[in-house]
Amino acid sequence: MTVQLIPIKGIGEVTKGDDLASVILESMAAGGLSLQDRDVVVVTHKIVSKAEGAVVTGVESESEYRQIVEGQAVSVLRRRGDLMIAETRHGFVCANAGVDRSNAAPGTVVLLPEDPDRSAHKLRNRLENTTGKSIGVVITDTFGRAWRRGVVDFAIGVSGVPSIVDYRGLEDMQGRVMEVTEVGIADEIAAAADLVMGKADGIPVSIVRGLDLKAPPGRGSDLVRPPEEDLFR
Amino acid sequence: MTVQLIPIKGIGEVTKGDDLASVILESMAAGGLSLQDRDVVVVTHKIVSKAEGAVVTGVESESEYRQIVEGQAVSVLRRRGDLMIAETRHGFVCANAGVDRSNAAPGTVVLLPEDPDRSAHKLRNRLENTTGKSIGVVITDTFGRAWRRGVVDFAIGVSGVPSIVDYRGLEDMQGRVMEVTEVGIADEIAAAADLVMGKADGIPVSIVRGLDLKAPPGRGSDLVRPPEEDLFR
Repeated sequence: MTVQLIPIKGIGEVTKGDDLASVILESMAAGGLSLQDRDVVVVTHKIVSKAEGAVVTGVESESEYRQIVEGQAVSVLRRRGDLMIAETRHGFVCANAGVDRSNAAPGTVVLLPEDPDRSAHKLRNRLENTTGKSIGVVITDTFGRAWRRGVVDFAIGVSGVPSIVDYRGLEDMQGRVMEVTEVGIADEIAAAADLVMGKADGIPVSIVRGLDLKAPPGRGSDLVRPPEEDLFR
Repeated sequence: MTVQLIPIKGIGEVTKGDDLASVILESMAAGGLSLQDRDVVVVTHKIVSKAEGAVVTGVESESEYRQIVEGQAVSVLRRRGDLMIAETRHGFVCANAGVDRSNAAPGTVVLLPEDPDRSAHKLRNRLENTTGKSIGVVITDTFGRAWRRGVVDFAIGVSGVPSIVDYRGLEDMQGRVMEVTEVGIADEIAAAADLVMGKADGIPVSIVRGLDLKAPPGRGSDLVRPPEEDLFR
């Protein structure tokens, strides 16, 4: 079983009200590509937020930007200089509460989608209805990590794909019960997709094709560790 | 540019002194595969540790296991019941200081390789010398994360591949300087590869083919955030 990571090129600027499913399918068609059953469509949240109008314009100063960031944070875990690690209302822990200025027009900042799982579900429905195929959708954002240098992409919205694969009770090759119990599979899909998206190239969509996922579908919110379980708040 | 994730099947039990390069190349040949220039060979650390003899046998009780774990930890970040989140001497922060019992014979525990970057470098040299191709190697381990449920694979040893891609000073599609500065690319490669490896299937090697990596090669240790920079120790 070989898995393919396929970048979707030619997706232009997305603005409020755009139908992302059409945008994606038209760009794919222009590149001679079409969706297949069990494809996972991975989309950076930025174009989802833009299509949903989750942007703030007219942000001229650093202090206006900081104010928006503070407004998006429900709790602040750490501050160092201008860097703020905050929890969003979705439960994501990330720099600047997910408020982003890169790949946006000057004066525009992009917020997280209001409900990334709902966004993923809507996009999946549109893609499935248009193509007749069984599709998964993962919406991603780029977060830093505790203890590790460098950011990577994570799954913030999921539909039609497992988010966590539970190995509890399964046996390993030696017949021993597995110690690794739950794998954050949608985060691995998000990280994999980023390998063909590239921060500077501005490729906001890719297809992960050929995955053999037997676990039931999950939600992006399943990947948020509840604060009461979390040793690092 | 499509990237392929190719599992290498048929790799049997590895024991001390085995030549991993030969084991990998023979399994690939048996499956009709051969290495190509710029392939990245991703290997779970478990077979590297076994080949290097980084195992402890005769571990009969939970308390003996706990003692080994304590011995592998240079500092303990958190404890909850039997769970210990500790820093290894390599600087990795993970559960049970990287000491692992699954996919090992009863009574045997597997430690981390002494120097995963050196292990990656040696394996890469052997693969390159045997095949004449330019190869990258990433050695992985499976870690939990702060704030997120589920474990994912991370890069602990790297050779011939960038570990971090630095976008500092680059401009985005709108000519704005990128906010995302450093991407943990080798961690994304590790996570991607895990999509075809599968914890329960016991596939310890895969190939990531078709990556277009322009950054200079790095080391796994580059991904360790120095404690003085880290907000979450």
